[in-house]
Amino acid sequence: MERLKKQIDFILEIDKLKEIYRQTYIASGKRKENDAEHSWHLALMCVLLSEYANEEIDLAKAITMVLIHDIVEIDAGDTYAYDVEGNATKAAREEKAAERLFNILPDDQAAYIKELWEEFEGGETAEARFCTAIDRAQPILLNDFIGGWSWKERGVTRSQINKRSKKINDGSQVIFNYIRDIVEQHTELGNIAKG
Amino acid sequence: MERLKKQIDFILEIDKLKEIYRQTYIASGKRKENDAEHSWHLALMCVLLSEYANEEIDLAKAITMVLIHDIVEIDAGDTYAYDVEGNATKAAREEKAAERLFNILPDDQAAYIKELWEEFEGGETAEARFCTAIDRAQPILLNDFIGGWSWKERGVTRSQINKRSKKINDGSQVIFNYIRDIVEQHTELGNIAKG
Repeated sequence: MERLKKQIDFILEIDKLKEIYRQTYIASGKRKENDAEHSWHLALMCVLLSEYANEEIDLAKAITMVLIHDIVEIDAGDTYAYDVEGNATKAAREEKAAERLFNILPDDQAAYIKELWEEFEGGETAEARFCTAIDRAQPILLNDFIGGWSWKERGVTRSQINKRSKKINDGSQVIFNYIRDIVEQHTELGNIAKG
Repeated sequence: MERLKKQIDFILEIDKLKEIYRQTYIASGKRKENDAEHSWHLALMCVLLSEYANEEIDLAKAITMVLIHDIVEIDAGDTYAYDVEGNATKAAREEKAAERLFNILPDDQAAYIKELWEEFEGGETAEARFCTAIDRAQPILLNDFIGGWSWKERGVTRSQINKRSKKINDGSQVIFNYIRDIVEQHTELGNIAKG
């Protein structure tokens, strides 16, 4: 059972995603969110919000895409959305991580997961656009839920958020409109800096 | 957008699953696993191991089933597998939780998620059998990975594990055989008590 052994090795290796912490706080505000629980949250958002995708999507594909989209961060680490230096080296770090991690799997599954991750990163298909929309909307929903102080803590500006949120519109105009209202409210409240 | 508001309310409510802790340790052994990251792990196990299901399964349905299978624990709490008293009241507590939590959603989605959860609990379909197999195999893989001391800590016996593991065989004979060998090894090592 060499094949099953490789699959189990991968399943145990990716357990490390439970210890990769993001910059977003969970809804209780008590601690930051890790990549594994973030991925679970996005997968359920795909299930519940797919009706708002701009284009028809293959739901099983989209769910699998969000389940695997952050696995490379086991080696590459989480790069904060507004970290300019980190984002300059992100692609190369993540490509190297993908090579090591996905190749723990049997060849056919390694190729399948790698292609799905590349499709997400490329952002050129209906599923990639919708998953990116969900991925960018979720932290805004959480930041809003805890009262917006997490934006203030980081000194994030409206133009930074709006630049990132454009991709939400590419995946779902309905979700984009919902998120845009949240951003406007928190700008008025002073939690998000003007400019 | 009353419908979207209900969906978002549910998505934020289930964030609490990130703070429901199980008895299983994550692979680093540093802390216990929470239900959200456990559900993510099971979802990816479904994707990667579905070829070993005894019966043909609808993968999208199985993934969604594991993503939602523990949501009731937000209100009902996690009931440890070998907690006799807790398991006697589990069904009633979880039924009440399902009523409150799933009904945050719009009616059609509330009904869909509730039926899927009931199907999982009922264990009478191919997807329910496979998802139960994955759910019972995953903690054994993690306990094995950290060296088996988590069984010893709890004084778990081989017959207790074997009784629970029968359901793995109903969903996947291949995975059952893999798990059975792990249990035998740790019984020989003294991590799992004989009897």
